[in-house]
Amino acid sequence: MTTTFRGVIPPVVTPLTAERELDRASFKRSIDRLIDAGVNGLFFLGSSGEVAFSTDERRREIIEAAIEFVAGRVPVLVGCIDTETDRVIEHAKVAKELGADAIVATAPFYALGGLPEIENHFRLIHEAVDLPLFAYDIPVCVHVKLPGDLLVRLGLDGVLAGVKDSSNDDVAFRFLVDDNNKAGHPLTLLTGQEVVVDGAYMAGADGSVPGLGNVECTGYVRMWQACEAGDWATVRAEQDKLAALMRIVTVTSGVSGFGAGVGAFKTAMALLGVFDTNQMPNPVQALQGENVEAVAAVLRECGLEPVRTPEEVTNSTH
Amino acid sequence: MTTTFRGVIPPVVTPLTAERELDRASFKRSIDRLIDAGVNGLFFLGSSGEVAFSTDERRREIIEAAIEFVAGRVPVLVGCIDTETDRVIEHAKVAKELGADAIVATAPFYALGGLPEIENHFRLIHEAVDLPLFAYDIPVCVHVKLPGDLLVRLGLDGVLAGVKDSSNDDVAFRFLVDDNNKAGHPLTLLTGQEVVVDGAYMAGADGSVPGLGNVECTGYVRMWQACEAGDWATVRAEQDKLAALMRIVTVTSGVSGFGAGVGAFKTAMALLGVFDTNQMPNPVQALQGENVEAVAAVLRECGLEPVRTPEEVTNSTH
Amino acid sequence: MTTTFRGVIPPVVTPLTAERELDRASFKRSIDRLIDAGVNGLFFLGSSGEVAFSTDERRREIIEAAIEFVAGRVPVLVGCIDTETDRVIEHAKVAKELGADAIVATAPFYALGGLPEIENHFRLIHEAVDLPLFAYDIPVCVHVKLPGDLLVRLGLDGVLAGVKDSSNDDVAFRFLVDDNNKAGHPLTLLTGQEVVVDGAYMAGADGSVPGLGNVECTGYVRMWQACEAGDWATVRAEQDKLAALMRIVTVTSGVSGFGAGVGAFKTAMALLGVFDTNQMPNPVQALQGENVEAVAAVLRECGLEPVRTPEEVTNSTH
Amino acid sequence: MTTTFRGVIPPVVTPLTAERELDRASFKRSIDRLIDAGVNGLFFLGSSGEVAFSTDERRREIIEAAIEFVAGRVPVLVGCIDTETDRVIEHAKVAKELGADAIVATAPFYALGGLPEIENHFRLIHEAVDLPLFAYDIPVCVHVKLPGDLLVRLGLDGVLAGVKDSSNDDVAFRFLVDDNNKAGHPLTLLTGQEVVVDGAYMAGADGSVPGLGNVECTGYVRMWQACEAGDWATVRAEQDKLAALMRIVTVTSGVSGFGAGVGAFKTAMALLGVFDTNQMPNPVQALQGENVEAVAAVLRECGLEPVRTPEEVTNSTH
Repeated sequence: MTTTFRGVIPPVVTPLTAERELDRASFKRSIDRLIDAGVNGLFFLGSSGEVAFSTDERRREIIEAAIEFVAGRVPVLVGCIDTETDRVIEHAKVAKELGADAIVATAPFYALGGLPEIENHFRLIHEAVDLPLFAYDIPVCVHVKLPGDLLVRLGLDGVLAGVKDSSNDDVAFRFLVDDNNKAGHPLTLLTGQEVVVDGAYMAGADGSVPGLGNVECTGYVRMWQACEAGDWATVRAEQDKLAALMRIVTVTSGVSGFGAGVGAFKTAMALLGVFDTNQMPNPVQALQGENVEAVAAVLRECGLEPVRTPEEVTNSTH
Repeated sequence: MTTTFRGVIPPVVTPLTAERELDRASFKRSIDRLIDAGVNGLFFLGSSGEVAFSTDERRREIIEAAIEFVAGRVPVLVGCIDTETDRVIEHAKVAKELGADAIVATAPFYALGGLPEIENHFRLIHEAVDLPLFAYDIPVCVHVKLPGDLLVRLGLDGVLAGVKDSSNDDVAFRFLVDDNNKAGHPLTLLTGQEVVVDGAYMAGADGSVPGLGNVECTGYVRMWQACEAGDWATVRAEQDKLAALMRIVTVTSGVSGFGAGVGAFKTAMALLGVFDTNQMPNPVQALQGENVEAVAAVLRECGLEPVRTPEEVTNSTH
Repeated sequence: MTTTFRGVIPPVVTPLTAERELDRASFKRSIDRLIDAGVNGLFFLGSSGEVAFSTDERRREIIEAAIEFVAGRVPVLVGCIDTETDRVIEHAKVAKELGADAIVATAPFYALGGLPEIENHFRLIHEAVDLPLFAYDIPVCVHVKLPGDLLVRLGLDGVLAGVKDSSNDDVAFRFLVDDNNKAGHPLTLLTGQEVVVDGAYMAGADGSVPGLGNVECTGYVRMWQACEAGDWATVRAEQDKLAALMRIVTVTSGVSGFGAGVGAFKTAMALLGVFDTNQMPNPVQALQGENVEAVAAVLRECGLEPVRTPEEVTNSTH
Repeated sequence: MTTTFRGVIPPVVTPLTAERELDRASFKRSIDRLIDAGVNGLFFLGSSGEVAFSTDERRREIIEAAIEFVAGRVPVLVGCIDTETDRVIEHAKVAKELGADAIVATAPFYALGGLPEIENHFRLIHEAVDLPLFAYDIPVCVHVKLPGDLLVRLGLDGVLAGVKDSSNDDVAFRFLVDDNNKAGHPLTLLTGQEVVVDGAYMAGADGSVPGLGNVECTGYVRMWQACEAGDWATVRAEQDKLAALMRIVTVTSGVSGFGAGVGAFKTAMALLGVFDTNQMPNPVQALQGENVEAVAAVLRECGLEPVRTPEEVTNSTH
């Protein structure tokens, strides 16, 4: 059953109108484009999907639109990200009620705890909501690294269906893959990387969740197909092209974190005509002016011709 | 106006029944006990008040009960703690609607950002909700330290009324006090420490928010009165006694973080008969057995005689 | 015996000539000035004494000059700071041979280890060199915090004579003081702070090691005498004045860390005529131009009139 | 010229006698074994080579023996690792005098600094010692990550010949490879990983510096040859086998850091008869008893039959 979630499963970026409402038209356009590119699933309300910025009402709105627009074409994973267990379970129940195929949760954060709390957290979520549960390992946000032995144990116990690994700890990921294989592969292991997916595939990952896939997904699909075929030269060539494109997140200045990363994704998508604006959720500012131009320049270098000017995108949030 | 919030303002711990419902009777008992001890205000839904563990419904329930039980005797501050701006504003609107006198918010967390996002965050909250706003500086949970110059600037601009400092960075706190004084004292500066309140008072703090005050508040009130009177020998003597009592959070084993800290506070309060149980929110386990005995031993050493046995408290969560 | 090291024991800053040789004349001037101010001891080759920048030959040169210039007037502590045990022991043997009264060592650093390695490290140093040994707790450099129970145990075993606490963790320091008192006070506990020495004295510190004392030591001596007399109002008043002076380390721009901290101390001492230059060891640049002017302005505000112009100091390193 | 240092260049582990003297016979045996396996160079006095534990005299002893035993068969790189610039330059001069072909230095550590200090540090080393200089990027020890743009700039300026990357930040490494290629490949880029070398090769690394190569180097040589031939299936297969062997560093208990990592390497080499003992430098304890048995079990699973019993190895340090 867990193999349902193999392959390329992008974390879908959430388009906003200038007034910071959900932009349903852009959302539908982006989802159709991703499915047309051949993705194996879609992950909504991940970190890139601005889950942390979204009120309960906005989260519900996003899930409903996602289920409507995907229309059963691929599996839908929904991020149920919040500080502690009871709040996560609330989100998970909503996700299930609205039709999610799987849920994704991090370890608890904000309050300090230890491994017993983390284990109990995942067990309680699993008991409360009968859907495949993925652990989301993202220490840069949660400030804890999920240990491989805990993950495999929770896999063997039927608590976890898989792991979305955004730890940028490729050594730990390789050991996790090996431990999971020795245990009979209870977990589906997805890497959340963008520019080192090739290494994760060499290590034995079951798929990837690349934020950059929102901008250009056909390359990630080709890379996965090449991986499945054992064609490593193609894996490498595709990765090189995508790594060049990922420079959209490093060519800007004066911005950082989510504003630089997802900000660049949204800006690229607005330049390419997928999104109507590059608006960001409060308290983050959208990229503007020279930063938009810098993103446009990278797109062009990578052979993706913008259909809108940097000025148009800069003005899209006003 | 900001002087309304000077003095001892404990972060009120939230009592739960064995079934993890809000224990209203214990809550009222604890609030009355704190007000009788002479506190200058009460802070609900802080980190110790298990805000991160509380669903929206639970938060509302706690605020309503707090307003009812306090009944205007002291100012009520309410923690509006959540990942990003829009979610915090939702909580702040509820707090205002239910009658809070001030709100307390951290910097954004989970998503990565920088100082521009932090500044914008506080400005947006202030624009959205017309209540005195305290910045809650707690790097151990939020993973960022609020810079003193930003805080004073937001104070001068009328955005912030004060700061609740739980940074355990006493050097930065002293510089903040000095900068605030030079700027005309726009901010009320409260220390969130328990065992080094004396040093914060020497530095010029306007008050304290001691979690340990839930267990024993008369000492903190005496310390503050001595501080106001310039009687530093008494400040020191009271602090020494309270530091000895604070050992309830270090004598346990096999627990950590919130479970060790607030777990010990709740256990002490259950031993003293203030709380009916020492139940903890999911996914945290209540202290049990030898850990409860260890807390009881510290209480006795400090002259606080338990009215219930460790066994009774251990059994209170079942 | 350990009481020999109570009181104010500044970490002596090392003056350099423009060519980065040891400036013996300035060194003697500074040492005499500190002893005249009434210090209880002097600590050479601490972090502020640029131990990490000093070759073995330079370390020997500094110790020899220190012993010669101090001439038995106060106890001399020598920092034997290096990555791992055998290297520290080499330094300690030299320090003893040259006449040090006590040695100061951090936990091992660079290589990763755990508590067993730290404990073994201090035991091996103590076995190898028969001098009072102080543990130097400075997590910002060593990246580990020394646990209080380990320190007290090593004190009871006669391994450690004391602790120089530069952890900026005042909560841990207060618990350490209490644990040490309960154990019969085996350790002399010195705080390495500058602006929160008052809090450390309230907590029960046995003295202080303030880097700022190089610039102005009479205030620290008065603060200690007031502490011994229980005159907390004077402790507080002196601390306030010294905190204002400490702003020399925050008014500069474009510099950080050692260059900003010790750089400001040296610049102030050059402005005050104690040092001939404000030269810094490789690879650090001396403060120049507007940064020197900013330090001079703070000195004047604090009533310390420079005897040299900022231009003269800026030119002193060329 | 920098291409001299391409390929597999293991960081050579330093064998000790039971009395912690340099074990020259084991050292020669290990060096011959590595060269026979087909390495492209040898790196002495790296982190694995216990540089941080070695006094100046020991360092000299190791370099002299290394030069003697290598006898010009492969290039010799020497780690000149120390806290700050002048100390590093001293080591570098000794290395040059004794015949090293290249030197390897980290950023400064212990004292706090910033990028200007790091850049100046490498420039000063390069000016002082005319040998190819590699920057050693190892944040886990040095607590700073070297930025890619700084490295490439120092490469273009002729300051750096290459980088030994032990940052475990594969995203940054890929961007570094790309930036280096765009700049005309001024730097030779070596990965310090053991179990994700395949990913680094996919990214375009010029070689590897695997500590595990001390235990089994023929696999790393085959992996490099396959990489050069574009035979990625073999790269992957070899990496999988080496990842399985790397479990020697995770199967032990009660040890951590250097003691667990290099401790396991030395223990494996003692079990395989390459080293006479598994002795560790002060203050680290050698692996013993069940930990030695656990390492032996992994060796056997990987087809490397021990020639000595765990008991013999445990007794080798007494």
